[in-house]
Amino acid sequence: VAGDEEFAVAVVGAASLVGGEILELLRERGFPLREVRLLGSNRTAGKVIEEEGRRDTIGLLGPGSFDGIELAFFAAGPGVAGEYAERAVTAGAAVIDCSSRFRLADDVPLVVPEINPEAIAEQRARGIVANPGNTAIGLAVVLAPILAAVGLRRVTVSTYQGVASAGRRALHALSKETVDLLNSRGGRRSRFARPLAFNCVPQVGVLAPGGWTAHEAQLVEETRKILALPGLAMAVTAVRVAMFFGSAMSVGIETEEPLDAAAAAALLGEAPGVLVHEGDAYPTPNEVVGSEATHVGRLREDPSVEHGLSLWIALDAVRKGAALNAVQIAEILIRDYL
Amino acid sequence: VAGDEEFAVAVVGAASLVGGEILELLRERGFPLREVRLLGSNRTAGKVIEEEGRRDTIGLLGPGSFDGIELAFFAAGPGVAGEYAERAVTAGAAVIDCSSRFRLADDVPLVVPEINPEAIAEQRARGIVANPGNTAIGLAVVLAPILAAVGLRRVTVSTYQGVASAGRRALHALSKETVDLLNSRGGRRSRFARPLAFNCVPQVGVLAPGGWTAHEAQLVEETRKILALPGLAMAVTAVRVAMFFGSAMSVGIETEEPLDAAAAAALLGEAPGVLVHEGDAYPTPNEVVGSEATHVGRLREDPSVEHGLSLWIALDAVRKGAALNAVQIAEILIRDYL
Repeated sequence: VAGDEEFAVAVVGAASLVGGEILELLRERGFPLREVRLLGSNRTAGKVIEEEGRRDTIGLLGPGSFDGIELAFFAAGPGVAGEYAERAVTAGAAVIDCSSRFRLADDVPLVVPEINPEAIAEQRARGIVANPGNTAIGLAVVLAPILAAVGLRRVTVSTYQGVASAGRRALHALSKETVDLLNSRGGRRSRFARPLAFNCVPQVGVLAPGGWTAHEAQLVEETRKILALPGLAMAVTAVRVAMFFGSAMSVGIETEEPLDAAAAAALLGEAPGVLVHEGDAYPTPNEVVGSEATHVGRLREDPSVEHGLSLWIALDAVRKGAALNAVQIAEILIRDYL
Repeated sequence: VAGDEEFAVAVVGAASLVGGEILELLRERGFPLREVRLLGSNRTAGKVIEEEGRRDTIGLLGPGSFDGIELAFFAAGPGVAGEYAERAVTAGAAVIDCSSRFRLADDVPLVVPEINPEAIAEQRARGIVANPGNTAIGLAVVLAPILAAVGLRRVTVSTYQGVASAGRRALHALSKETVDLLNSRGGRRSRFARPLAFNCVPQVGVLAPGGWTAHEAQLVEETRKILALPGLAMAVTAVRVAMFFGSAMSVGIETEEPLDAAAAAALLGEAPGVLVHEGDAYPTPNEVVGSEATHVGRLREDPSVEHGLSLWIALDAVRKGAALNAVQIAEILIRDYL
C-alpha cells in the first residue's frame, strides 16, 4: 500500500477495557485513520467516549454497521464475535478478534507479531485474525526464542492473574469487595468464582471434565498453536489473584538441549518484546502496568530435572496482553495485506 | 506419665500471632497446664494478654526466665531462639521452636505429627524439637501418603503465601497499603520486598546466589527432612500475595508408580490432617482460615509427564501452619517423653 493511505476502522466493544486501550494505542502509534467507528451492544450504545478532546458516540451493532469499514477490531466477548465478525468480513472488512471465539479455529491464524507475523497471510481464508489470550501472549513471547535456540520438551505454568481480563466490571467488583471486607461487610455473593478480595481462587473459567478448567486447556492449545508445536507437553494451573491490570506466571521449562541461566538471559535479552530483569531485580504485575513489554525475572536453573529452567513472567494483561498485540497485528495487516 | 500430671509451660513471643494462637489452642485442647509463663523481648514485655477472662502480663526474657519450666514454646524469630532456646533446655525445659533457627540442624528433629511423630525421640540429643515452616507442613502432610503408596520422583511448587507468616506487623502493613492505594496515597516505602497491595511479589526471604531465595531453598530442605527423602527432586517458586492468614500452593507431582486422580483422592481422603475437596469444590486460602486441616483441591492427572498429578493446597499459615503443629508436638512430648 502507499504509505499515505488511510483506513476506515471500526472498534466493536469500544466501551470495554480492551476497546478503550485499542483506541488509545491507535492514536498514540499514529495509525493512519480516515474514520473511527465505535460500536457496541444495547448495553453501551449511545455512550460517549471522550479522548484527547474528541467526543465519539458508540453506535448500536446491527445491519449496516460495517458498511465502508476496512478494518474491524472486536474487543467484545465471544458471543458478539460469533454474531458479527463474519458480517464485518462480508461487508469488506478485515477482522481482528480479541475474544476466544476463533482462536482455535483451523482456518483462522492466531498471531503474536513478534513470533508468527507470517501467519497473518492465512487470514485470506476467512478474513479473520485471532488475538490470543493475555497469558498465552506473555508465555509465547518468552518461549519462542528458547524453542528456536534449544527446543522445548515440557512447560509448566502456575498463573497469578488479575481481574482486568474479566472486564471493566470485574475491576469495580474487586474494589468493592475489598472496601466491604476492610469495613467488615463481607459475605455477599461474589462476581468471581469465590470471593476474591485478599484471597486467591484456583479457577479461571469453567471447570471441565478431567479436572482442568476450560481456561487452562485453552492456554495450552493457544500456546501450541502460536508456537506451531502441537505436541508440546504442558500443564497449567490458572489462579485468579486480587490484582487489577497486571498478570504474572511462575514457569518451569525443560529444554531439549541444555541452556544455562546466563545464556537464557542473554537469549531473552535479544528477543523482541521481552525485557529481562537480572540479579535482585524482578518484575511485579503492578509495576509493569502500562508497559508494552513482557517482563521476565527470577531466571534460574532448575536442578530437579534435566535441562530445567525456572522463571517468572509479568505483563499488563490489557496492553501487550490484548490491545497492543491487536494493534501490532493491524499494523502488519495494512502494510502487507490490505 | 500419669494422665493427671500438669505442666509448667512457657510461651516465648507470646504477643506474636503464633504465640497467641498457641495460647488459644492450649486452652481449647485442654492441655494439662499447671502454669503458663508468657515471655517476650523489650518490645513486648509488660504487655497484658487477655484471654477468656484471664489477664497475663508478658515477662521480659532474661536470666531465670525458664526456672521451673518443663516445656517452652518459642514463637519468636530465629534470633531469639538462638539466644534463649538452649538456656531453656539448660534450665530443664523441653523446647519446641517455631522459628527457622534449628529446623535443618542434624541433631534436632523436624516434626509433623501426622508424618514423623517417632522423630520426636531424637529431641533427647539437644532438648529441642523444631516446628517446620507453614508451607513445608502443608506440603509434607499431602506428600507423605503419596510417597508411602507410590513413591515420589519429583515435586514442583509455586506458592501463594499470605503475610501472616511475616508477623503481626505485616498484617497491619498490608491493610494500610491497601487503604492507601484505594485512596490514591500510594508510593511510600513498603514493608515487603515490593509494594504488595493488589500485587504479588516473587520474593519471600532474601535472594541467594544461583537465583533461588533462601526461603525456597529452606522449603526444599525442610520437606526432604520431614519425608526422610534427602534426594527428592524439588523446584519451588515462592510468591507473596496480598492475603492475610491463608496460604496456598500449586503443586506438580511425579510419582514412581502410577496413581490416577481418583486413587489419589481416595488415598488423601484417608490421610490424617488432610481434607480433600472434589469435583467443583476446592479450597481457597481465605475459606480455610481457622481450619485445623490441610485442604486439597483441583486434584487431576497431568498428562504432560509420566505419572503426573497436579493439585492445589490451602491452609491456615498460623494455625496448622505453625501453632497447631507445635501444640500437637507438645501433646506427644508430654505423653511419651516428659
